[in-house]
Amino acid sequence: MTKVIMNGCNGKMGQTITEICKADADIEIVAGIDLYDGIDNDYPVFSSIDKCDVDADVVIDFSNAKAVDGVLDYCVDKQVPVVLCTTGLSDEQLAKVEECYKKVAVLKSANMSLGINTLMALLKKAAQVFAPAGFDMEIVEKHHNLKLDAPSGTALALADSINEAMDNEYHYVYDRSQRREKRDPKEIGISAVRGGSIVGEHEVLFCGQDEVIEFKHTAYSKAVFAKGAVEAAKFLKGKGAGHYDMADVIAAK
Amino acid sequence: MTKVIMNGCNGKMGQTITEICKADADIEIVAGIDLYDGIDNDYPVFSSIDKCDVDADVVIDFSNAKAVDGVLDYCVDKQVPVVLCTTGLSDEQLAKVEECYKKVAVLKSANMSLGINTLMALLKKAAQVFAPAGFDMEIVEKHHNLKLDAPSGTALALADSINEAMDNEYHYVYDRSQRREKRDPKEIGISAVRGGSIVGEHEVLFCGQDEVIEFKHTAYSKAVFAKGAVEAAKFLKGKGAGHYDMADVIAAK
Amino acid sequence: MTKVIMNGCNGKMGQTITEICKADADIEIVAGIDLYDGIDNDYPVFSSIDKCDVDADVVIDFSNAKAVDGVLDYCVDKQVPVVLCTTGLSDEQLAKVEECYKKVAVLKSANMSLGINTLMALLKKAAQVFAPAGFDMEIVEKHHNLKLDAPSGTALALADSINEAMDNEYHYVYDRSQRREKRDPKEIGISAVRGGSIVGEHEVLFCGQDEVIEFKHTAYSKAVFAKGAVEAAKFLKGKGAGHYDMADVIAAK
Amino acid sequence: MTKVIMNGCNGKMGQTITEICKADADIEIVAGIDLYDGIDNDYPVFSSIDKCDVDADVVIDFSNAKAVDGVLDYCVDKQVPVVLCTTGLSDEQLAKVEECYKKVAVLKSANMSLGINTLMALLKKAAQVFAPAGFDMEIVEKHHNLKLDAPSGTALALADSINEAMDNEYHYVYDRSQRREKRDPKEIGISAVRGGSIVGEHEVLFCGQDEVIEFKHTAYSKAVFAKGAVEAAKFLKGKGAGHYDMADVIAAK
Repeated sequence: MTKVIMNGCNGKMGQTITEICKADADIEIVAGIDLYDGIDNDYPVFSSIDKCDVDADVVIDFSNAKAVDGVLDYCVDKQVPVVLCTTGLSDEQLAKVEECYKKVAVLKSANMSLGINTLMALLKKAAQVFAPAGFDMEIVEKHHNLKLDAPSGTALALADSINEAMDNEYHYVYDRSQRREKRDPKEIGISAVRGGSIVGEHEVLFCGQDEVIEFKHTAYSKAVFAKGAVEAAKFLKGKGAGHYDMADVIAAK
Repeated sequence: MTKVIMNGCNGKMGQTITEICKADADIEIVAGIDLYDGIDNDYPVFSSIDKCDVDADVVIDFSNAKAVDGVLDYCVDKQVPVVLCTTGLSDEQLAKVEECYKKVAVLKSANMSLGINTLMALLKKAAQVFAPAGFDMEIVEKHHNLKLDAPSGTALALADSINEAMDNEYHYVYDRSQRREKRDPKEIGISAVRGGSIVGEHEVLFCGQDEVIEFKHTAYSKAVFAKGAVEAAKFLKGKGAGHYDMADVIAAK
Repeated sequence: MTKVIMNGCNGKMGQTITEICKADADIEIVAGIDLYDGIDNDYPVFSSIDKCDVDADVVIDFSNAKAVDGVLDYCVDKQVPVVLCTTGLSDEQLAKVEECYKKVAVLKSANMSLGINTLMALLKKAAQVFAPAGFDMEIVEKHHNLKLDAPSGTALALADSINEAMDNEYHYVYDRSQRREKRDPKEIGISAVRGGSIVGEHEVLFCGQDEVIEFKHTAYSKAVFAKGAVEAAKFLKGKGAGHYDMADVIAAK
Repeated sequence: MTKVIMNGCNGKMGQTITEICKADADIEIVAGIDLYDGIDNDYPVFSSIDKCDVDADVVIDFSNAKAVDGVLDYCVDKQVPVVLCTTGLSDEQLAKVEECYKKVAVLKSANMSLGINTLMALLKKAAQVFAPAGFDMEIVEKHHNLKLDAPSGTALALADSINEAMDNEYHYVYDRSQRREKRDPKEIGISAVRGGSIVGEHEVLFCGQDEVIEFKHTAYSKAVFAKGAVEAAKFLKGKGAGHYDMADVIAAK
């Protein structure tokens, strides 16, 4: 049984994780942290993590960038592993996270879903076969119309993953409308589609002479990320200092 | 029976059209024009259209920009309708084509396939229902790695077609990586994927709250454009001066 | 302002419709009907529709087959139009619905989403161009692993819609593994994929020589059906006896 | 340099392989076998393989079932490895092929493309992660309207490959229209779409709670199979008796 402090418990993701934990006998939320207290949870809720007096095995953080410094301090101080899902961290905060890797177990992944992370491992192998055989690599991602950044962090992580497997010989291209030339074999094109309420689609294409191989992940709701965070918390209980990601969670299965 | 002069008869498209006409009792190539004479055709081949002394009902032109002026002069002079499929015309040539519309029947379309042109008509209707209901419109096109321009002329024609149906209120966006903001409801995103030998794929998306409607056209070989040109030639026989496009060919069916 | 009685108000769809109506100033739920009373709604809830003493402009029914007879009797008796979304009706019940068309306004559609119903109208036109040109028509639908029937009612409605546009010359094929022969040009293949929690995908293909045109609808959540029901209710207020469907709602926009 | 006898040299695939070999300095066709002699090749053509007096390193066979016995006898007798691409063999012939594995190197694969065979290896790994996590597996294949068998041999090979990785616990379902029940977690649904001139598409889906992962291969022309046969021939030169398949060719790269 893994005991969890849910940082950001009354946000959308916090509530989804609350639902998942209720239905799972192996994990329990023992305390929540949120400034907003209008939701009636089965666990005590504190307005900030330093006011929390409940012991836990892991902290799951799905809050906002402002709250992250407090969470990191708490986890290092109390030596509680943390699943860090908040995005949009500043460069200073990212540097602080790097420091924390030396002091406590931190799980941080560009994408929390089982599907994307499994795909990432398979794509490395695919790239090593297809790229030397002359296949071009392209990524198309689709998200809702409120998303601010493009391409998505996950699309970039997929590209980095492929590129790493190919000795980082590739560069990324986001726009082809401003030039008039043939495709460079060493480019990875990344296209970002925005519309409606699309939760998240990522498509990686290997395009060869007369054949195309396509790997596609579709998320139908944010629950897949919540579920990934829950699995990550179970995995992280009792782990020593270091940087973990979802690939470690999958490998341990 | 439609008698055709095939301008550019020994190029790839010229030969594909030759094959299609052989198998179709309603159309016959009576002469070809090409500088290259290494192919043995069933019809006489001339090195330039002004040397051609064979009468025809229609000229099909799939040559190169340099040859187009001669073709237009010939067709105006002899009053022979022309299916003009050569792309990459200069601004001067496009102006000349505009002039020709007043003097002879000219069929010119951004894309010669039955599929794309039917889709274009349906997309206008789709846009008129979905756009007012708050759906976002996006286009993704995929072509081979040798294509110089992006987005494709067909993708732009699809966008123009939708935009025209919506009183031209929309602007096009080719790159979202250089900004950090929500999607403007009045934008049409157009993404260009390049790889391998992909002949041509065009996908138009209408993205709403919790639902996406997708219209997709895939060309498996350039034969679809040749077939369209043959249908266009049959249609154009005997037509008076004016600008025709594939929509007219489809409407006449 | 349309006043609604929500039959089946405490089910999943009933609650989704409740949410949508809260956020929409043009419609209000004035009473709910449900046997289960464990949910705290802003409107009075009755255990059966004949106990309801609140006046309304329209009844929305998303309940279960057993409750439908009572709803029909109520709507005929009180002359209140009804949006009938419950599926799985018996042949007797379907006959009763037919009878009701003569007495009160009934809106009944195979699928309540704006997307599917718009698509259905466009597919008729597409079929009339592509089928005579020798294109083969195929449908693939995908749903979650708990769905009992296959193919889906919506897939059959799409096929019927196409077939009707082609003078009902086509027959449907659900399995090709038991024979060893070429495809009959007059068949529409319908494939049903089942897996995970897929809400609903429908893909209609027109397959020709070297080109394929694809129309695809993806529902990301059941909210699209709830939203359609709300639009249908607004439309149905004040309508005379007859059978209406979502196509009428769209046409009236 | 690999010297090849092309059995069935004047068929469509034989001619495609002839083209590919012309452009590849590492392989040369030294003789062709075909009953039809109306094509002018750069190499001598014999009406049957037993009349061929030219030495070669490998035989590529893309002929018809009737010709296969002669090819096998020749290859065993002369100890020449053979890339066996002809399909539709009888049970007797398949038994004979099994016998030949003991006597000479035979490469036989359900599908000759690099893409499908690489995918097959990745799918085994994907199945081992996703299936235990409760994901449902489904296959959809699409082919032209002249194909007699359904599902395709490649779809069955993909299913077998996944099933083998899961201890053969799964059974295949080709039709869901005749029953009314929930999906069995231990089934792999296989759907066959037929239409137009589609060369071959195979899509493998892993469907979980709120996410779907899709692996898709599209062949745009039969050249991909010809190219695979040429790579196979280079690989097979000098190999000892045994059954090889495209996975061996890829692994050796």
